[in-house]
Amino acid sequence: MTTAKQWVLASRPEGAPNSENFRLEEVALPELADGQILVENTFASVDPYMRGRMNDAKSYIEPFQIDQPLTGTAVGTVAESRSDKFKVGDTVRHFAGWRTHAVLHEEQVEQIDTGIAPAEAYLGILGLTGLTAYVGLTAVGEMKQGDVVFISGAAGAVGSAAGQIAKHLGAAKVIGSAGSAEKIDYITGIGFDEAFNYKDGDVTGQLAKAAPEGVDVYFDNVGGDHLEAAIANANTFGRIAMCGAIAQYNDTEPAPGPRNLGLSIGKCLTLRGFVVGQYSHLAEEFQEKIAPLVVDGSIGYETTVREGIDTMPKAFLELFEGGNTGKMIVKL
Amino acid sequence: MTTAKQWVLASRPEGAPNSENFRLEEVALPELADGQILVENTFASVDPYMRGRMNDAKSYIEPFQIDQPLTGTAVGTVAESRSDKFKVGDTVRHFAGWRTHAVLHEEQVEQIDTGIAPAEAYLGILGLTGLTAYVGLTAVGEMKQGDVVFISGAAGAVGSAAGQIAKHLGAAKVIGSAGSAEKIDYITGIGFDEAFNYKDGDVTGQLAKAAPEGVDVYFDNVGGDHLEAAIANANTFGRIAMCGAIAQYNDTEPAPGPRNLGLSIGKCLTLRGFVVGQYSHLAEEFQEKIAPLVVDGSIGYETTVREGIDTMPKAFLELFEGGNTGKMIVKL
Repeated sequence: MTTAKQWVLASRPEGAPNSENFRLEEVALPELADGQILVENTFASVDPYMRGRMNDAKSYIEPFQIDQPLTGTAVGTVAESRSDKFKVGDTVRHFAGWRTHAVLHEEQVEQIDTGIAPAEAYLGILGLTGLTAYVGLTAVGEMKQGDVVFISGAAGAVGSAAGQIAKHLGAAKVIGSAGSAEKIDYITGIGFDEAFNYKDGDVTGQLAKAAPEGVDVYFDNVGGDHLEAAIANANTFGRIAMCGAIAQYNDTEPAPGPRNLGLSIGKCLTLRGFVVGQYSHLAEEFQEKIAPLVVDGSIGYETTVREGIDTMPKAFLELFEGGNTGKMIVKL
Repeated sequence: MTTAKQWVLASRPEGAPNSENFRLEEVALPELADGQILVENTFASVDPYMRGRMNDAKSYIEPFQIDQPLTGTAVGTVAESRSDKFKVGDTVRHFAGWRTHAVLHEEQVEQIDTGIAPAEAYLGILGLTGLTAYVGLTAVGEMKQGDVVFISGAAGAVGSAAGQIAKHLGAAKVIGSAGSAEKIDYITGIGFDEAFNYKDGDVTGQLAKAAPEGVDVYFDNVGGDHLEAAIANANTFGRIAMCGAIAQYNDTEPAPGPRNLGLSIGKCLTLRGFVVGQYSHLAEEFQEKIAPLVVDGSIGYETTVREGIDTMPKAFLELFEGGNTGKMIVKL
């Protein structure tokens, strides 16, 4: 009988989560039924949006349940199969992350081609990370050729992808902010035209210096003072794609919105929130237009890898401390 | 020699303006040059947006200047003419309000047809007021047939127009909020399906009761707790047209934005600010689609009239106390 190690939600956090909110369990896996496969996971994703699922709150995705295993994207190898679609040794992607093994129905997994990109890329740039960046710039931010684009969290998985995609879509200038000198080096190295360290203070002033011509599209991954800076520096008919607000995910009180939101009226700004799940109809377009640029190396990506199932909660918590450059994943 | 009485900006307000910020002057008018006309104003408009022009701040419209006459929309009668385009007795609309007479070049005025609607309608429902309501619902709010539409400041000039236009465009339900029982009676009388008095408290709860199916489009004239209520009650892919924030125009400190702006991400909301001046290309469409409904009485409008040039600052200040139902104008 095969057993799996899996992380369950031990308790809901008040404010910032900590390791006490997670518990590692060993469970016996059932025998395979017809149409099922056993997957041995090789890599699992940790993502900021999972913080929201730790709360018992109605949202666009159902909350994690106490004493139940956590979920998220993972890739793995088929170890046993009672499916006609998959054979032992196939590499697949699925949503039963946070565990070493999973028994899944063939409809719950998709095959990935590790001949063109490594398995871990399918958890990031070739997965929801890349699609989020693409959708945020195009359908949500309505980016046009010649636009000045500002991206916060620019050294993160989504931000670094968005900056490179914006350049490929014809942005006149792409500006990124991040929280360390190393990250600034990284994002200028992958093609951002301007970059600044928000920890140097005065985000509005630093952005004004980087974009004296004003900002047309802002891709918001952090909220807070970055959102105010973008509104202050936005051009008329500027657009703001609100993807995330990691600075506020652990707040116990609702954070005040931008104090200068009133400027949106005179400037005719559009602020549009989005979750990638509402834009899955653009996945094919992304595969056609952007995935080949990843495969041929035109668009690069960084992966921060932690090793071992034991490290998963810590890797997740590091996201909120800026511990990652690029996509944070765990090698199981 | 003809003289005119005109209001000038005596001083800039700190917070709420008062009568001390205005000064009435009598000035001699120049002789007409070729192409000029003398207009005797009959009605002048006071509008909330004028509050912003009293500040010395860069915006979408230039600030009023100290000791210089205020401006705004007015209608009047041509009293003398050295223009081939206008003859004595013509009724015209122009931007030299806040005064009894104005000498203007023929290019600065437009003729209006008082045979189809009274002159004062051209300061409101057939002017920028009506266009603002139309643009806010259509180009900005992207209202579709079957949408549930919520409008704040619903008894005001723009709000009352927006509610009626929304019904004509096929809204499934139009909900309005206003600040007195009389105003609630007024807006239900002109076709709003639901209405509540925001002074009864808990705007979010009152809106939830009026729109248990959720809100698709919110036309924001007030900001503050109404904006939070709309975000809280918005459906997925809801749209918010930010037209004004009269509740905050007199604040000396920047007002915090909505505390629940983060909900816009999961709900995929669009918040879009606008000023009607950026949408003048839709004036013709408005004239074709909506003006006939005003002329034939399908869309009604209310006018609150104060009498005499002396009353203008007071009429303007009343806007911030909810002293008007419908469009506030001054008969000169």
